[in-house]
Amino acid sequence: MDGNGKKALKREIEELEQELALLQRRCRELGIPVLIVFEGWSAAGKGTMINRVIQPLDPRGFKVSCIAAPNRDEQLRPFLWRFWRRTPSAERMAIFDRSWYRTLLDDYVAEELDEDSLSKALDDVVAFENQLKDGGTVIFKFFLDISKEEQAERLDKLRKNPATAWRVSDDVLARHCKYGQYKKATKRLIEATDLPASPWKVIDAKHVTSANASILRCLVKVLGKRVTALATDVPKQGPPPKKDLPVFPTAPSLKRVDLSLSLDRDEYRKLLEKRQKRIGELHDEIYHRRIPVVIVYEGWDAGGKGGNIRRLTEEMDPRGYEVIPIAAPNDVEKVHHYLWRFWTEFPKAGHLTIFDRSWYGRVLVERVEGFCSEADWNRAYGEINEMEENFWHFGAVVIKFWLQIDKDEQMNRFKAREKDSAKQWKLNEEDWRNREKWDLYEEATEEMFLRTNTSYAPWTVIEGNCKRYARIKALDGVIAAIEARIAEED
Amino acid sequence: MDGNGKKALKREIEELEQELALLQRRCRELGIPVLIVFEGWSAAGKGTMINRVIQPLDPRGFKVSCIAAPNRDEQLRPFLWRFWRRTPSAERMAIFDRSWYRTLLDDYVAEELDEDSLSKALDDVVAFENQLKDGGTVIFKFFLDISKEEQAERLDKLRKNPATAWRVSDDVLARHCKYGQYKKATKRLIEATDLPASPWKVIDAKHVTSANASILRCLVKVLGKRVTALATDVPKQGPPPKKDLPVFPTAPSLKRVDLSLSLDRDEYRKLLEKRQKRIGELHDEIYHRRIPVVIVYEGWDAGGKGGNIRRLTEEMDPRGYEVIPIAAPNDVEKVHHYLWRFWTEFPKAGHLTIFDRSWYGRVLVERVEGFCSEADWNRAYGEINEMEENFWHFGAVVIKFWLQIDKDEQMNRFKAREKDSAKQWKLNEEDWRNREKWDLYEEATEEMFLRTNTSYAPWTVIEGNCKRYARIKALDGVIAAIEARIAEED
Repeated sequence: MDGNGKKALKREIEELEQELALLQRRCRELGIPVLIVFEGWSAAGKGTMINRVIQPLDPRGFKVSCIAAPNRDEQLRPFLWRFWRRTPSAERMAIFDRSWYRTLLDDYVAEELDEDSLSKALDDVVAFENQLKDGGTVIFKFFLDISKEEQAERLDKLRKNPATAWRVSDDVLARHCKYGQYKKATKRLIEATDLPASPWKVIDAKHVTSANASILRCLVKVLGKRVTALATDVPKQGPPPKKDLPVFPTAPSLKRVDLSLSLDRDEYRKLLEKRQKRIGELHDEIYHRRIPVVIVYEGWDAGGKGGNIRRLTEEMDPRGYEVIPIAAPNDVEKVHHYLWRFWTEFPKAGHLTIFDRSWYGRVLVERVEGFCSEADWNRAYGEINEMEENFWHFGAVVIKFWLQIDKDEQMNRFKAREKDSAKQWKLNEEDWRNREKWDLYEEATEEMFLRTNTSYAPWTVIEGNCKRYARIKALDGVIAAIEARIAEED
Repeated sequence: MDGNGKKALKREIEELEQELALLQRRCRELGIPVLIVFEGWSAAGKGTMINRVIQPLDPRGFKVSCIAAPNRDEQLRPFLWRFWRRTPSAERMAIFDRSWYRTLLDDYVAEELDEDSLSKALDDVVAFENQLKDGGTVIFKFFLDISKEEQAERLDKLRKNPATAWRVSDDVLARHCKYGQYKKATKRLIEATDLPASPWKVIDAKHVTSANASILRCLVKVLGKRVTALATDVPKQGPPPKKDLPVFPTAPSLKRVDLSLSLDRDEYRKLLEKRQKRIGELHDEIYHRRIPVVIVYEGWDAGGKGGNIRRLTEEMDPRGYEVIPIAAPNDVEKVHHYLWRFWTEFPKAGHLTIFDRSWYGRVLVERVEGFCSEADWNRAYGEINEMEENFWHFGAVVIKFWLQIDKDEQMNRFKAREKDSAKQWKLNEEDWRNREKWDLYEEATEEMFLRTNTSYAPWTVIEGNCKRYARIKALDGVIAAIEARIAEED
């Protein structure tokens, strides 16, 4: 490039930087989350490129995450957990210096990932990126490309400078020697994940300035389009046709529930003691075997979830379980993807997490109350199945309970709460309002069963008019699911 | 205990549990954070005790943290960092299964902590607990005590049961053998930290039920008192007499600032390039040496913080620094101690964090606008010094800049922003309102210098009327502080 060409490029970059700064503010105002991934060869200049991109930005509006090997906490979670935690909110761009692709690439080249595991992992990645995109996130994936010769030269230069020599670790050199293998593996990963929602952009990183310009052009073009589209006209995404949504014919139904099932006090006490003892043992066992367990409790107000959970946990070691009560999202949760707060609470392998209400709120309360669009909750069935499948890929046991009571029983319990001063706080106007929408909730519940009763995370309806019966049935359900999982392993 | 005694105790426990459940709700309503620490011998029954305490509680209202050895992220932070992150909000009790005392105890017994380090660590712990207490947190510290013989018996029983044998690790056995040493060390730690704000309660843990009752009695008594006090009458805590607050006579003053200092463009360009190159080198160096660096930017609106920070970071590797812009707290931050959000952002050792505004908001905007009480901001000087001292104990370089401009210069910049469409967003009504309170802010700033200009975290006032001069002075300041720190090490 001649002198004039260089000057023109510099001017273009300055203009692009100003536009990018403006677009960043507009994205924030419009609530558009932005995710930018930088992948590429060692010494390809990821650090420099990222620093150039962020310089014109308002630091309030982005966060750079550097991805190294997972720490212990991260190793004990599904591999996308640490990335889900760092997904952008509508208020802050997330910039990744390396990403979920790094782990995959390393493991693939090191042959620690067989074809089956790789293909599962790629499914999970595709679902992850599609979910973010469908939630409104704009995703950029840049791969900074340099040739083996260029890399050799750069590593050499780094090594010769005493201030930077330490950067060229044995690990980096080992990768350099395997350049060919990495190139092949990279090609495969890029092809498998070059999605309409999140296409790859391979950047020739030999010349810093022109690489910088390519990246800026891409960011400005795509963000500009999105901002214009959102600012001028909100395109209503229609719900997918119902017939395209899969159903699970063996799903339970509220119509087939026998609410007369009950247990007398003596029988209950005997069974409770036995079951709690067994749960205690199994809790030790899952810890020992590093099996994560996720238990979802859904059901009607006053359905007895609290008391049921208490009986389940009474004899467990509190160091190995946690109860996560789900209420309306707080303002940090509100600006994230709706699945974000559930992903972040995924238990460590060997631990057990009980969700007192859950992500199914999307297709229950949010659907019935209109807190999200029809397209949103229709899409949620598939997203939820994908999330649970991801948990299952990681080896989690996923148990889902619906605590069923009938309308009369609910009225009795509401009235009892009104009378009991120690329980009055448990009853509020919302409970009465929800009760008026009983039929709508019932309809939503039936569809939820039908669309999310997967083999890896099936629903169990618990007959709840008799609390004692319900508690024993939940304990039995947990015991059976964990025992089945252990039997598979042995 | 005879049969009647047992029954009476059981009844008492049931009553205490009901009271505790009620108190938990009241604490939440009144915004009282509660922190409960369980320490004690291996096999003393911490798990059982915690589970008994949480059973009657609303799971929405507590969180159990189990403290094991620190992970890599935690090792790279001051040792209280991981506990600060887990301090309770006004909405959720924090229950610790082991705590900051465990690390101290282990290191002390292993003789990895010399007397000087131990005494610094104990100072930090005392400051930590006092700060939480002064912020309104009720702190409980239970030590579950059993004799060596009792421990031997229990470990034996655990080992004989195949389901629990794995719990008796070599580590646990090693501690058991050192029972005497641990006992002595524990005594010393308990004595040094048995504070009025957070007294220890040693619980005889031989009998589960009576230990449970002791713990419940203590919780109900102390929480009951606090709830009654807060609910009936808010005691106004008077500010400490001014003469008792320490001052640092060598502190800078806005009265002695020469705002005519300036740099011409050519000189600036030359210096900028040199300084940025040097910062780049030092950034590598601190990473290599694992020195954490904390830089605070405070100053007037339109003082030039943004541009100044940009020049500081332009040549840094984005993987090693972060800019944290501080605005009004969000609703998660609001229910925590005011220092919580700053502690959580402490850089990893080897990284550099720039706070664009900071914890000094407590004694600037919060003081001037009346967002906290006079007692609160008066206490803050000491709390801030303690926090920065804690950072310093960990080896951090703490650099604090005040970007000074005069009132005329501010007016010029406001006007320029009004005219420039690309910068209009930077100016809002609040900026104009703050300007009207110039004198009050000046007074607050002067007192801030006087009370927080410690040797380990001194203030530098930057003459900012000439932006070029200010940028070079900030770069020089950072270079000098880091070079001094490296020189100390070599």
